[in-house]
Amino acid sequence: MSFKKEFGFKRLTQVDEALEKYLKLFKSIDESETVETVNSLNRVLTKDIKSPEDIPPFNRSAMDGYAVRSIDVSGASESSPVRLKLAGYSTTSNPFNGSMGQCEAVRIDTGARMPEGADSVVMLEYTRRVGDYIEVFKQISPYENVSLRGEDVRKGDVIVYGGIPLTPYDIACLINAGIYEVEVFRKVKVGLAAVGSELLDFPSKLPEGMVREVNRINIKYYLSMYYPVEFKDYGIIPDDHDRVREVIEKGIEENDVMITIGGSSLGKGDVVTDIAENLGNIIVHGVALYPSRPVLLSEMSGKPYIGVPGYPVAAAVTARVFLEPVIMKLAGIRGVLVEGRVKGRLSRRVSSRIGFRHYVRVKLKPSKDGFVVEPIYTSGAGILSSLSLGDGYLIIPEDVEGYEAGDEVEVILYRRVIKV
Amino acid sequence: MSFKKEFGFKRLTQVDEALEKYLKLFKSIDESETVETVNSLNRVLTKDIKSPEDIPPFNRSAMDGYAVRSIDVSGASESSPVRLKLAGYSTTSNPFNGSMGQCEAVRIDTGARMPEGADSVVMLEYTRRVGDYIEVFKQISPYENVSLRGEDVRKGDVIVYGGIPLTPYDIACLINAGIYEVEVFRKVKVGLAAVGSELLDFPSKLPEGMVREVNRINIKYYLSMYYPVEFKDYGIIPDDHDRVREVIEKGIEENDVMITIGGSSLGKGDVVTDIAENLGNIIVHGVALYPSRPVLLSEMSGKPYIGVPGYPVAAAVTARVFLEPVIMKLAGIRGVLVEGRVKGRLSRRVSSRIGFRHYVRVKLKPSKDGFVVEPIYTSGAGILSSLSLGDGYLIIPEDVEGYEAGDEVEVILYRRVIKV
Repeated sequence: MSFKKEFGFKRLTQVDEALEKYLKLFKSIDESETVETVNSLNRVLTKDIKSPEDIPPFNRSAMDGYAVRSIDVSGASESSPVRLKLAGYSTTSNPFNGSMGQCEAVRIDTGARMPEGADSVVMLEYTRRVGDYIEVFKQISPYENVSLRGEDVRKGDVIVYGGIPLTPYDIACLINAGIYEVEVFRKVKVGLAAVGSELLDFPSKLPEGMVREVNRINIKYYLSMYYPVEFKDYGIIPDDHDRVREVIEKGIEENDVMITIGGSSLGKGDVVTDIAENLGNIIVHGVALYPSRPVLLSEMSGKPYIGVPGYPVAAAVTARVFLEPVIMKLAGIRGVLVEGRVKGRLSRRVSSRIGFRHYVRVKLKPSKDGFVVEPIYTSGAGILSSLSLGDGYLIIPEDVEGYEAGDEVEVILYRRVIKV
Repeated sequence: MSFKKEFGFKRLTQVDEALEKYLKLFKSIDESETVETVNSLNRVLTKDIKSPEDIPPFNRSAMDGYAVRSIDVSGASESSPVRLKLAGYSTTSNPFNGSMGQCEAVRIDTGARMPEGADSVVMLEYTRRVGDYIEVFKQISPYENVSLRGEDVRKGDVIVYGGIPLTPYDIACLINAGIYEVEVFRKVKVGLAAVGSELLDFPSKLPEGMVREVNRINIKYYLSMYYPVEFKDYGIIPDDHDRVREVIEKGIEENDVMITIGGSSLGKGDVVTDIAENLGNIIVHGVALYPSRPVLLSEMSGKPYIGVPGYPVAAAVTARVFLEPVIMKLAGIRGVLVEGRVKGRLSRRVSSRIGFRHYVRVKLKPSKDGFVVEPIYTSGAGILSSLSLGDGYLIIPEDVEGYEAGDEVEVILYRRVIKV
């Protein structure tokens, strides 16, 4: 009895079970390379980075104001200001190098080095300049408005974590600490092909019965936004067993993961399942995920070979649910994916099938009482405008049987800016 | 009395008021250009795009199975299957061109054209092949498992909205509809300079009292991730009135918006406020935002000139709170920014000042009962590792006076993958 019959689509694997079974088969890339920090967006550090120095390297003012001894202005208030003698000015480029005496103050800029003898900074707005003196209208605690040496970061402290994709903030933090080069895992090589004799790339006119292939572009853009990936595009392969087999073999050989889109369902014209069975091991075929049932997760020469459904919405959901975790694992990422949610009330009922995880595309509409969540009705997984007219996914878990109109639900956004 | 004295930092403008006052002064770019759809990520369409065709262009199967007349299989069940004669096979590349008669079935692949005469598709798993016949074990409604012509999109329907940045999904949808070029607003030209005699770009060794400039990189990366921007980098300008003035004038002339970082607080060494006052009109100086008080929003030759605080965390928060809305406005974006949130319980108290909006950096820690939200303690706005060690912002609104340990709060993430 063939695998296909035994594990045919009458038995679908639940998403979490499929991921657990599949991800544990593969190891992270262990090759690394050195890159300029400024070019390391989304790259993954091989290890935590520690600060090579104290930051700040000296005590400095956190405010524009006057450096003082806090004890000198004890009891100062609007009605009984304390008068101090102005002894100098400390700027970031010209620090005050003398020593500040009792009942003296030094005018100081934000970021400038604290004068010796001063322990705190009174903000400008609580002072008044009177000739060579200042009046202070507020008392202050020791070290108030002062950034102490090593307070931000002590030499040897972790400043940026390894094992998660670097953000602009991380890059700024590294450069700020004088770390201009970093060791990162090399990029994940991803082979990509679309399978289907009906597919065309950018035809000037679409012949009847043919379909424009858009899944490769979608998947490339999506994964590149967040992860260190390097795509090798094998283009469109017609439904020809030998040619598809050739491309999958080549793709597995030349990359860390091979992905074909289309050809993974049970149709007679589909070829990738047979190839996966013959050249490797099918781990999961068919998942309890709407709209993405015919996902094929297999292992070939120790690498993941994944068959993604060809319908564009199913391909997009598969990219999120299966490709993203696989890429994370290969890329050396040891963190957890967390997506923000937006609450709203459903404009109408959405039904779902118990035991399946559903990704329902929804539009958010701002209203007086928060967002209205409007499901975008579609009959199938091919309807790309259900993604482009929507703002996010309402995920219906396996143990929930839909939601009623008016229910409060949470939406995972795939846009930062929504149409209103 | 100068503006600075009159509207000095004792009177701070609240964030929403500042944005409202400021944004209405500027118009969106109205110049557009044609770009290839495949290169239009984050670009903004000048208008909604309508479908030039019906999608699908014909009735097609949404499943692998058998095309049937629903009336023929009425009453079919596991115990009393209905037998139909197999009349052919319709694949995506070889549609069945005959007409299907009564009590006949045509084997059909997902996406293949429906045979004339058939109105529905029985899924493969509810059938059994018996020689030239099939047995159907389930009754079906008319049009079940069929995607009707124009069902996804009718010719003339809006498929992608103008006025919001394009996502991979939008791009796929446009190309799918045969739209390979789109008209978008030209990119927003952003002039950027850092002001401060203490700043250095990538010094091999950092002289005492000097600081590595990282805000330009941070702001460039951050805005480029989401918006169509084109940066002109004027580098680091020392605290010299004439040189700063020259760069700001040039920046305003050559760009749609000019941004300087640093030099916008009340320190005597700061120069940008005077320049903004002399060359244009200061709209807001000083906002009730922690950590970003000394924000300078001004108008110069009809364009926005913005002074961003130099402390890195303040610069990052200013980029989110002020630069992002300004760029959105200029870019022709008419949508609303919506950020997803993650709920969690505070590990300890965070205090805030009534009347101020606070952006507290926090680390999320997964626990049995959901996330623990751990504020990252920092004394000032310079501590970049509070961003790199954190996962998101806990925003404390103006009318809330902090939160207690154990309070449920919502966090806006700035990472997709968090360290655990």
